[in-house]
Formats: sequence, structure tokens, C-alpha cells
Amino acid sequence: MHDTSAILLQLFIVFVAAQVGSELAQRLRLPGVVGEIAAGCLVGPSLLGWVHGSEALDVLAEIGVVLLLFSVGLETRLDDLKRVGRAAFLVGVLGVVVPFALGSVWAHDAGYDWNKSLFLAAAFVATSAGITARVLQDLGALQRVESRVILGAAVIDDILAMLLLGVVTALQAGGSLHLGSLAVVLLEAVGFVAVIGWVGTRVARRSSHWLDKPRHPLSPLTVVLALCLGLAFLSTEFGLAAIIGAFLAGMIASETSQRETLEHQTQPLLALLTPFFFVITGTKVKLDLLGSTDALLMLGVVTAIALVSKLVGGFLGALSLGRRGALIVGVGMIPRGEVGVVIASLGLGAGVFSEKTYAVIVAMSLLTAMVTPPVLAVLLRRTPAA
Amino acid sequence: MHDTSAILLQLFIVFVAAQVGSELAQRLRLPGVVGEIAAGCLVGPSLLGWVHGSEALDVLAEIGVVLLLFSVGLETRLDDLKRVGRAAFLVGVLGVVVPFALGSVWAHDAGYDWNKSLFLAAAFVATSAGITARVLQDLGALQRVESRVILGAAVIDDILAMLLLGVVTALQAGGSLHLGSLAVVLLEAVGFVAVIGWVGTRVARRSSHWLDKPRHPLSPLTVVLALCLGLAFLSTEFGLAAIIGAFLAGMIASETSQRETLEHQTQPLLALLTPFFFVITGTKVKLDLLGSTDALLMLGVVTAIALVSKLVGGFLGALSLGRRGALIVGVGMIPRGEVGVVIASLGLGAGVFSEKTYAVIVAMSLLTAMVTPPVLAVLLRRTPAA
Repeated sequence: MHDTSAILLQLFIVFVAAQVGSELAQRLRLPGVVGEIAAGCLVGPSLLGWVHGSEALDVLAEIGVVLLLFSVGLETRLDDLKRVGRAAFLVGVLGVVVPFALGSVWAHDAGYDWNKSLFLAAAFVATSAGITARVLQDLGALQRVESRVILGAAVIDDILAMLLLGVVTALQAGGSLHLGSLAVVLLEAVGFVAVIGWVGTRVARRSSHWLDKPRHPLSPLTVVLALCLGLAFLSTEFGLAAIIGAFLAGMIASETSQRETLEHQTQPLLALLTPFFFVITGTKVKLDLLGSTDALLMLGVVTAIALVSKLVGGFLGALSLGRRGALIVGVGMIPRGEVGVVIASLGLGAGVFSEKTYAVIVAMSLLTAMVTPPVLAVLLRRTPAA
Repeated sequence: MHDTSAILLQLFIVFVAAQVGSELAQRLRLPGVVGEIAAGCLVGPSLLGWVHGSEALDVLAEIGVVLLLFSVGLETRLDDLKRVGRAAFLVGVLGVVVPFALGSVWAHDAGYDWNKSLFLAAAFVATSAGITARVLQDLGALQRVESRVILGAAVIDDILAMLLLGVVTALQAGGSLHLGSLAVVLLEAVGFVAVIGWVGTRVARRSSHWLDKPRHPLSPLTVVLALCLGLAFLSTEFGLAAIIGAFLAGMIASETSQRETLEHQTQPLLALLTPFFFVITGTKVKLDLLGSTDALLMLGVVTAIALVSKLVGGFLGALSLGRRGALIVGVGMIPRGEVGVVIASLGLGAGVFSEKTYAVIVAMSLLTAMVTPPVLAVLLRRTPAA
């Protein structure tokens, strides 16, 4: 029974920290999500030590971000995404190539051999859609063309990052690269997204009328929640992030006639669960390992490379939207968030780099996540929607 | 990343199992909750083995039942509870005394020494309010006088069960009983419920007007969810079940002007999270240990004693409602659910009884939880509200 007591206290602290952090950030005219991540740093092991990592909190965080991307999918139509397909593809590809190139050159310059450099550079690559999606949603900007490009690019980005991780892991392990098996992995991932996205939305559009006369007002919600959990699982089976499947599930649900009711019913779920994602993300930063000037200098350089390379890649890819729109897309692609953390953990586990480098990469991921929201908010407010 | 995949699959299975089980049960004209528990038995380690216990699932289950009792509290006014105070008190006391007496006599008869018999009997005592609350809520019967008596009695019951557990644990450990320290424990628990219930509802009634003009339509919800988590934690600190604190939080929230909005917003949370509680409860049963005629016989006897003793205790305590009302209350108090499981685990850990006895007590707890809902549903439908 004491276990229950301890975990309830953790839940209470995380939830309240999120609300207080979000409120303070908003009073400082910053997006609430910045305050939630900062609150996580504060209550986490590095500072107050009130919240320690646990499987249960990680799972709640995962459910939180899965529901967030589901709700973003609910506000996204496949047809709208298709219309920006070319720009999204370019942003996705250039947003991976530029950071990967710059990152590996820097790492090699810093003294790592090429195999390790490529691994390190992979941690520069993957955009975490959660942070940007939350800002876009909070500002009611999900219908803007820039937002669609960002969301489409996030899917491409995730597929490429997954492939890249496969490549650098194989190189690092000393194995040879089988282009054939890489092609299979690529085909599977692309196939998954295409089939689920295309078939799912068609089926939803044509045969969702049985959702119109539910036995219980919440039945459509439980059906789409099951779809969300199922596709989140399936996408991890295809090597993609769970949020990609959740986003697809949301897009499918957005084609049903119940879309507005579902949007409405999803709100309380987000209110309870997404704070866990952002606060737990904040708790992962290890301030104690960043205590030396050396480490701080490295953090500065790494973060600068991560920021600039993604911004340039995204900007170049989205130039068809005009300079201002391309800038918004570039900034929106910056956050690395939890994906950088996952790749860094893999590198640490495989002995590719030290605890210090690990701490730097994690801190870089979180810094990009903290820096983006205020800049993005200002840019969006000052740029009229196209 | 594979971890995420595995846990998402578990979430998906539990959630879908709950929906399918609930749907099938309802087609058989049984309450949905019976189907959810049965689905848990099916997918749990005893049969299909698709879902294994994990900290994360237990926490989700706990959040689920906490939210359920919170929502039941939202539909309960303190004044209504006060009006049935006498009956609820009698039901609570007799519903503890009769099962404890019968249980210890049976255990002594079965060959246990008195200290062990008293411990075993303690596992017969505590009513689990979750199961009954769900049935009452599903049938829209929370406003009936019988429901109020049951909910009030569940609070008294939990306080007495907590005291009893303290007594039998001390006896079992060979320690002497300090009546003084027991009195302190009792005073703390009663004080907690009285202060939170009385002061909380008064404060909510008088000064909740600031909730009327929220900055965001979900702000009142986040405030009361924080209150719910906080009181759930606090009540475990006072030795009570987390659901008692959650119920009090709901009662406090029901005194605010936002009551109806909150009821509405809580529904999607229940839809996502309560299935975890009922399915996980079902997964706890260990069918393999019940394979012998011996064990089945013992299960039959134990379940019969548990059923009859609680029914008689509750019936006698509620006679002021008339025979029919008293019967509803008696049946409503029958489910032991997770509380019996917790006490049985303690007994197993302390070496008070064998794995087989443990499995029997767990199965008894779940059987009482399965048997009650259909009987209660029939009784409620056939008895006009007083």
C-alpha cells in the first residue's frame, strides 16, 4: 500500500508542477510548454529531486504525447497534407541531410573516428513533433499551410531518421551495410504510412456512418482510442515513433462525421496526460554533468550546430512558401526533444561516447525544445496566414 | 524503443479486451463491468498470458479507480450523505463485524491458530467501493437513498478495515496491542475524512466563484484533478484507500458552480482509464492454483461466508430503509475487489498462509466482485426509488 502512496505523490507533483510552470510561463508571455519542461528540470533529480524516473511515469508520458499527436491528427486532413506534399518532402529530406552532414563533420573535427561521428550526428537529426505540435495547437495555427508542411515533414523526417539510425548502428557494430535490407526497412516504413494513411482515411470517409448512432455517447471515442493505441503500437513495430501511428489514427478519425465531438472529448484527456510528457522530458536533463566550462562550451557548440543546421535545412526545403513561411517551417522543425534523448541513450549503451557527451546531447535536445516555442509563437503571431 | 512497443501492445490489448468484454456482457444483459473483469481473467497470465503484471499497468489501474470514485463523488452532495448518516454508520460497522466474526470462526475451525484466523478474517472485511459505484453510476442510480447509504458506509468500512488490519498485523507480529496508538490512528483517519469533507465542501460552496471565469475552459478541470490526486495521496498517508480521498475531492468539486461541466469533462477520462482498473483486477486471479477439488471446495465455502456475512451485516444495518432497500444495500456492500487482494498479499508476504489460501482469497474477492453487479442491477431495476 505504501507503493501506491509514493506513486500518487509523484503524480500529484508532476501534475501540479506542470500547471504552475505553464501558468508562470504564460505570464512571462512564453508558451506554456516551456514552463512545463522547466518545471520538470526543477522537480527532477538534478535540482529538487522530488521526481525520479520510473516506468509508470514514462508510460504516462508516452500516452500523453501519443494522445497529443492523435489530437493534432484530428485537426489534419489528408487532402491538406497532400497539397503540401512536395514542400513537406523537401523539408523532411533537407532537414535530415544538413544536420547529419554538419554534425558528423563537427564530431570528426572534435576527434571522433568516422563511424562514431556518424552515430553522434544521427542524434542531431530527428525532429520531435510533440513540442511544435503543442505550440501550433495552443495558438490555433494547425490549419496554416506552414503547419501542414511541418507535420508532413515530421513524418518524412521520422522515416529517414529511423533509416539513418539503422545505418549508423550497423556501421558502429562493425557489420557491413546491406543496401538490400535497408531498402526493405525503408519500403516497410513508407508502405505502413502510405497504406494506413490512404486506406484508413478512405475507409473512415466511406463507412463511418455506423458511428453516428452510437449505443453510448462515448462509443465513438473508445473506438478511435483503440485505433490510436493500436496504430501507435504498429508504427513502433515498423521502426517508427509511436506518435506517427497516433497522428495517422487522428487523421483517420478526422474523416469521420464525429470529428468535432471527438475533438471536444479529447481535450480533457490532453489536460490530464500531456503534462506528464513535458514535465518528464524536463526531468531527464542532468545538470550535474554539465558543471564544467568544458561541458558548457561543448553544449553551446552542439546546440548552435543543431539549431542552425535544422533551421537551414527546413528553410531551404520550404522556400516555395516564401521567406517568411520558410522561416516558420525551419524554426518549427528545430526541436529534437525525446528522440535525441533516445538516440543518445543508444550511443551511451553501445559505448560510442562518454557520459558527458551523453549529457550534452540530452541537454541540447531539451534546449532546442525550450528555445523553439517562444520564437515560433512570435513568428506565427507576426505573420498573417497565407 | 522496443520497451515502448511492448507496453503499447499491452495498453492496446487491455483497452480492447475491456471494450469487447463490456459489449458481450451487455448483450447477455449483464453489467459491463463483469465483462471487463472476465476479459482480464482471459488475457491475464492464467489463461492467454497476453498481459502480465507491470508497475505501469498497476498505476494506470489505480488512476482509473481514483478517477471513477472522483466522478462518483461529483454526483454526491455532503448534505445528502449526512441525511443517511445513521444508516450508513450502522451498515459500515455491522458490515465489518459480521464478516470478521464469521471469517475468524471459520478459519479457526479450519485449523489456523487464533492470531492467523483473525488475519485471515481481515481479508473478508473490506468492501471495495469501485465495483458497486460503477454499477450504480451505469444505472444512473447514484441519487437513490440506498446508493448514498452504500457510499457513506464504504467510507466507514474503509476506516474500520484499516484499523482492523493494524490490529491483526500487530497480533500476528507477536507485538502487544497499544490501545492508545490504535485510538490515535482512528482519530487521524476520522479527523481526515471529517475535516476534508466538511471544510472542503464549505470552502468550495463559498469561494468557488473564481472558477466561473476561467482563463481556459479546462482550467477548473485541472484544478479539481490536482485536488483529486492530492487528496488521494493524502488519504493513503492516513492509512486509508486512495479512492476515499478521490471520493472526497469529487464531493468538494460537486459543491462548485462548475459541477455539470466537470461531470461532462470527466467522462472521456473514465472512458480511457477505468477499463484498466477492471481488466487488471481480472488478471490477478490465479486459476492454476485453484485446479484441485480441495481448493475449489475451500473457494466455495470462503465465498459463501464472504457473501452471506456481508449481506447480513449490510441488511441489518440498513433495515431503516425497509426490507427491499436493506437488501440492495447489503448486496451493494458485497464486493471485496482489490482490497481483499491487498490484504491477502500482506498475509502471504508475512507467511500467515499458503499460496493456495492466497489464491483462494484472491479468487473469492473477484467472485464477489463478479456476482454483485448482475444481482444489484436486477434489484435496482425492480425496486422503485424511495
